[in-house]
Amino acid sequence: MMLRRTVWLWALLACAWCQAAVAAEARYEIGWPDLPQHKTWVVDLHMHTVFSDGLVWPTVRVVEAWRTGLHAIAISDHIEYQPHKEDVPTKHNRPYEIAQGAARDRGLLLVRAAEITRDTPPGHFNAVFLDDIQPLDTPGFVDSLAEAKKQNAFVFWNHQGWKGEEKGRWMDVHTEIFDKKLFQGMEVCNGNTYFPTAHQWCLEKNLTMMGTSDIHDTETRLKNTAADHRTVTLVFIKEPTAQGLKEALLAGRTLVWFKEQVIGKPEWLEAMFAAGVRVLPPNSRGKAHIFVPIENALPCDLVLKQAGNIGPAEITLPAKATTLVRINVQDPNNPQELKYTVTNWLVAPGKGLGVTLNVAGK
Amino acid sequence: MMLRRTVWLWALLACAWCQAAVAAEARYEIGWPDLPQHKTWVVDLHMHTVFSDGLVWPTVRVVEAWRTGLHAIAISDHIEYQPHKEDVPTKHNRPYEIAQGAARDRGLLLVRAAEITRDTPPGHFNAVFLDDIQPLDTPGFVDSLAEAKKQNAFVFWNHQGWKGEEKGRWMDVHTEIFDKKLFQGMEVCNGNTYFPTAHQWCLEKNLTMMGTSDIHDTETRLKNTAADHRTVTLVFIKEPTAQGLKEALLAGRTLVWFKEQVIGKPEWLEAMFAAGVRVLPPNSRGKAHIFVPIENALPCDLVLKQAGNIGPAEITLPAKATTLVRINVQDPNNPQELKYTVTNWLVAPGKGLGVTLNVAGK
Amino acid sequence: MMLRRTVWLWALLACAWCQAAVAAEARYEIGWPDLPQHKTWVVDLHMHTVFSDGLVWPTVRVVEAWRTGLHAIAISDHIEYQPHKEDVPTKHNRPYEIAQGAARDRGLLLVRAAEITRDTPPGHFNAVFLDDIQPLDTPGFVDSLAEAKKQNAFVFWNHQGWKGEEKGRWMDVHTEIFDKKLFQGMEVCNGNTYFPTAHQWCLEKNLTMMGTSDIHDTETRLKNTAADHRTVTLVFIKEPTAQGLKEALLAGRTLVWFKEQVIGKPEWLEAMFAAGVRVLPPNSRGKAHIFVPIENALPCDLVLKQAGNIGPAEITLPAKATTLVRINVQDPNNPQELKYTVTNWLVAPGKGLGVTLNVAGK
Amino acid sequence: MMLRRTVWLWALLACAWCQAAVAAEARYEIGWPDLPQHKTWVVDLHMHTVFSDGLVWPTVRVVEAWRTGLHAIAISDHIEYQPHKEDVPTKHNRPYEIAQGAARDRGLLLVRAAEITRDTPPGHFNAVFLDDIQPLDTPGFVDSLAEAKKQNAFVFWNHQGWKGEEKGRWMDVHTEIFDKKLFQGMEVCNGNTYFPTAHQWCLEKNLTMMGTSDIHDTETRLKNTAADHRTVTLVFIKEPTAQGLKEALLAGRTLVWFKEQVIGKPEWLEAMFAAGVRVLPPNSRGKAHIFVPIENALPCDLVLKQAGNIGPAEITLPAKATTLVRINVQDPNNPQELKYTVTNWLVAPGKGLGVTLNVAGK
Repeated sequence: MMLRRTVWLWALLACAWCQAAVAAEARYEIGWPDLPQHKTWVVDLHMHTVFSDGLVWPTVRVVEAWRTGLHAIAISDHIEYQPHKEDVPTKHNRPYEIAQGAARDRGLLLVRAAEITRDTPPGHFNAVFLDDIQPLDTPGFVDSLAEAKKQNAFVFWNHQGWKGEEKGRWMDVHTEIFDKKLFQGMEVCNGNTYFPTAHQWCLEKNLTMMGTSDIHDTETRLKNTAADHRTVTLVFIKEPTAQGLKEALLAGRTLVWFKEQVIGKPEWLEAMFAAGVRVLPPNSRGKAHIFVPIENALPCDLVLKQAGNIGPAEITLPAKATTLVRINVQDPNNPQELKYTVTNWLVAPGKGLGVTLNVAGK
Repeated sequence: MMLRRTVWLWALLACAWCQAAVAAEARYEIGWPDLPQHKTWVVDLHMHTVFSDGLVWPTVRVVEAWRTGLHAIAISDHIEYQPHKEDVPTKHNRPYEIAQGAARDRGLLLVRAAEITRDTPPGHFNAVFLDDIQPLDTPGFVDSLAEAKKQNAFVFWNHQGWKGEEKGRWMDVHTEIFDKKLFQGMEVCNGNTYFPTAHQWCLEKNLTMMGTSDIHDTETRLKNTAADHRTVTLVFIKEPTAQGLKEALLAGRTLVWFKEQVIGKPEWLEAMFAAGVRVLPPNSRGKAHIFVPIENALPCDLVLKQAGNIGPAEITLPAKATTLVRINVQDPNNPQELKYTVTNWLVAPGKGLGVTLNVAGK
Repeated sequence: MMLRRTVWLWALLACAWCQAAVAAEARYEIGWPDLPQHKTWVVDLHMHTVFSDGLVWPTVRVVEAWRTGLHAIAISDHIEYQPHKEDVPTKHNRPYEIAQGAARDRGLLLVRAAEITRDTPPGHFNAVFLDDIQPLDTPGFVDSLAEAKKQNAFVFWNHQGWKGEEKGRWMDVHTEIFDKKLFQGMEVCNGNTYFPTAHQWCLEKNLTMMGTSDIHDTETRLKNTAADHRTVTLVFIKEPTAQGLKEALLAGRTLVWFKEQVIGKPEWLEAMFAAGVRVLPPNSRGKAHIFVPIENALPCDLVLKQAGNIGPAEITLPAKATTLVRINVQDPNNPQELKYTVTNWLVAPGKGLGVTLNVAGK
Repeated sequence: MMLRRTVWLWALLACAWCQAAVAAEARYEIGWPDLPQHKTWVVDLHMHTVFSDGLVWPTVRVVEAWRTGLHAIAISDHIEYQPHKEDVPTKHNRPYEIAQGAARDRGLLLVRAAEITRDTPPGHFNAVFLDDIQPLDTPGFVDSLAEAKKQNAFVFWNHQGWKGEEKGRWMDVHTEIFDKKLFQGMEVCNGNTYFPTAHQWCLEKNLTMMGTSDIHDTETRLKNTAADHRTVTLVFIKEPTAQGLKEALLAGRTLVWFKEQVIGKPEWLEAMFAAGVRVLPPNSRGKAHIFVPIENALPCDLVLKQAGNIGPAEITLPAKATTLVRINVQDPNNPQELKYTVTNWLVAPGKGLGVTLNVAGK
């Protein structure tokens, strides 16, 4: 039986006709494992509603996120850009207020946020963990960021290199706000786009790497899977609270999950690889070969390229599967150390993660 | 290559960041065939937006409908019930006005409509093909319907037997509005619910049978298929215009496509069966059996039960496939006439459509 | 990226052209959890190859089973019925011998077996854990079973009530072999068919309940999922060996997974439900309702019907998902005890499993 | 309702237990359209069974091909290589003989064939449309090809550049057999591999381009779709017979469908594009843009890159969908001629097909 998973907004059950239906709502976990010292949260801090240029009611963002396995989101409607305002008058704090009941019912963390949307340069910035959005509606750009800082927000620079901003051009205003510590992160990936310059700058300037959906439209996915998922940030938290999330973001404990790639600092990529990939003992040993099952528990295919001199030239480990690998060896009873590069996990633009697969001896 | 079909609202490309993306939008036809004298349109005349208790911007309804193969829709926000009005002030005609550009760009027919939502009884009614919704916002229920009639609307009674209305209870007020010809159709199916009483009354009182989604939430389907589709009305039109659609509805030329069922008047079920099912000549003839391919070009599985004395007790013809059927016969070279009941096509509550499958002789 | 999971037979890499391709083979675990005292194995002990009336080479059965998450299988070609013998001469032990290398390479348990296929009545019987099939090729039916017993086989009666056997008719010969302890189990489900009489007899006579595929054709499934899976037996073992499997079968520690149903003795159904279903603390408490997430970690949808007086009339818990359930209660801060029947888990023909869902208080 | 499409071999219904089930078998057409002067057949002339190194009974190849929408196949077991011969003694003509009843019952064309499998060089060759395979079992390689010619076979060179054969090396023996007209085609694609050298040689020497599965294992696909399909040859025939197929192959009227690509001579690519792609009249015209729906009826995504100066830089037209394209133009009322390259349709290695999309004026 293939169930059609109905999505339902309990918060809106004022519609009495709807109440008649037996309605429930189901959540599908994605399966990114926790690390030994941290919980892994799937987080999206950039999205829009009808209160700016998005196309859905604020509660929809909560329901979409919950059912597809996210742990925390921020609705970040534009402060300055509201094409629907003739019909939906400007009220910066309303999206958060409207959505928070739906979030509480589901145990999803919703944080108050806004997108500061000035002409570019300097570009757009998301301010997250705000107390009140209204004071950010200032004439001056730097003033708006300063207000965000005053509220102890976490701020990141969105989709660098777009429109008026030149790609890869760091301007004086960016130096100014960086020196004033007015932002702490950058989007390395936004929706369907990857920004290699942002990736590079995050490494050089120790900025937190962010991945976001920037979703305006409806989410048609019922699940996030290796084959098709939303661009998000994996955040390694110590405590499952808003404060815990902010601490992790400020500390830069993130990875970006973008299409078939994972992008981040080597230490977090390594930790995630260790948490999710396991080389099992060989099933059988021939005269000059062994059959080794390799388990990939992650929701991400791993494309490995030989970086040493033992093992197949390429190994693809599909997500959430155990792959049987035949390895030609000189002495099948010896332990083997296989050197590979995970080509779709990036430690820097164009550079894959190096890993070692240790196969047990007899 | 499995493409993720991005849905995009051109009408909202004011968001300059969005424009940067190469965006396109794709439509998947469903595949209900035209009849010899009529075109077949897939139509949904009951849905909601943020302007009443729905959860999306009006243009979303157009994009959802177009990409999933519909030909015409009506946004029918409640006149009397607007739980978002604190944020989205009441303007009855705005959903239509906002969505019509998106509809024109796609060649989808959008008709102006509203749901008259008084206490039940008498229940809710959809008025479609209106010129102006405002005048229907009257104190009296019958007055509102009278105004709809004045505007030459097509009116149907929604989800009979819900809440205050008893199931299967036709009240004096219904006799009054029926006698005054203030409504012409009934929902036989609404979303996930089938109303056998409405089905029966449509047959007895010659009302047009309607199927609608009554969608409030977002549409997560990328296509409408036999396995998973929106509840809709198939309308057999002479001309692909608003006028042509209204004429067909008034004339009762409809079928209701609901889950795995099709419901309607026998003549239209028969016409659709004839248009979509074809018994091909036998591929081979054994001593006492023949192998006959039966093509079902329809987007609907057909579950047939033997009603005569030749052929398998049951035959399932999957949608858009050709099924190989082995038939035991006395003389394999003779033509064969197979009597079956299509158990999932209803000519009346609980009663399947009788069909004959003619197999050619040698 | 949607990978096409290539299935590959390493054992046949003699074909040098094939070797050129980078080939690997992936296994998808199904996700039936272990019980506190037992490991859960997914087992299929009835299938065929070209050596009787099946359509594949013996190694294929191993590869199909491994990639779809099974733990142990038996190839059980018919001893008496071999329609291909003109081209594939009779050799009863060859299927096992040919397939065992492929099984060893994958760490899948393959046990030697055969189907004793005499005229019915008395019907067909599978003998599993044999040392040598040849001696079972005897003229007399009871002699063949006796030889199986001599080899310490586990024997089960297949698809009761088929052809010459009347449904539900237990004959003298069955009493004879039952009294002689020549068989210990019965197929409650075989492929697409459920046998209520066999179900009933297993309960009355303490026979082990078996579910098998009886696959003759190729397996087109890439995974076994709630929506589409092979009919199998879940066996609760103490040790992951052939001996451990046999011990569990003789002790009757099984469940049958058949389409959307699970069938078995109440104690094992209860244990599996406890292992896979978890009521989480309420996310929020309203004045007269609470929102409770219920996690179903099992690869099986659960269809619950209210058997008490609190909670929705029906709750469907989709497989591997957490469902949000709104429960109307008098005092939202009190703990709640919800009584339900799992309608698709059968403790007897037509009788669902009773369960209690305990919701925590504040 | 999602039906599990059961595959069933009527030819093997000797298994009386199986007969009890209501079994049927369904075919899914792929949807490559006919050309104005020719029917389009989907053809696979390279595959194996247990009679050489394949893993299935011959009838399985017929059932797999029929259900997935093919029109003609050849089983081409190796003459010289039979790793199962201890259990399945060598009989070159048996696969064809065993499978032909199943083919006749389904109306699928099965032609007698064999793979001449000598050491490489010179490589492997498929001989198709044979009367008797036995006489090809000769000591000399050229003799075997000569026998195939005597029987009026169509012969093609398989997977060039494999093992002993160097990639891209045309040897004396190839000149000899080419000059003697002992082969007429080459595999441009075999299974998951594309051979650019073979592609180039087909263009230079006017050899027929072939795509084949070379399937040894079971086919797990239930349908052939744009997202996942078998490598095959599209053949443009005048008559739907074995003779008609041979005539078309000898005349070189083929395209190769390989993963997301189509490969062939420009005239056939152009004809197929014309048969399947249709630019519809603009839905709406703005001040400086038009919205044009483009229908792609083909079972293949089309990836277009701008080769002129009007239209988006890239357009992807998903298979069997209509894509809405916004085109910025100077005068929206003028007709427009859009120049594009179909990057995934190859007229030569690395070279896409040039096409023109004509948009109607007002």
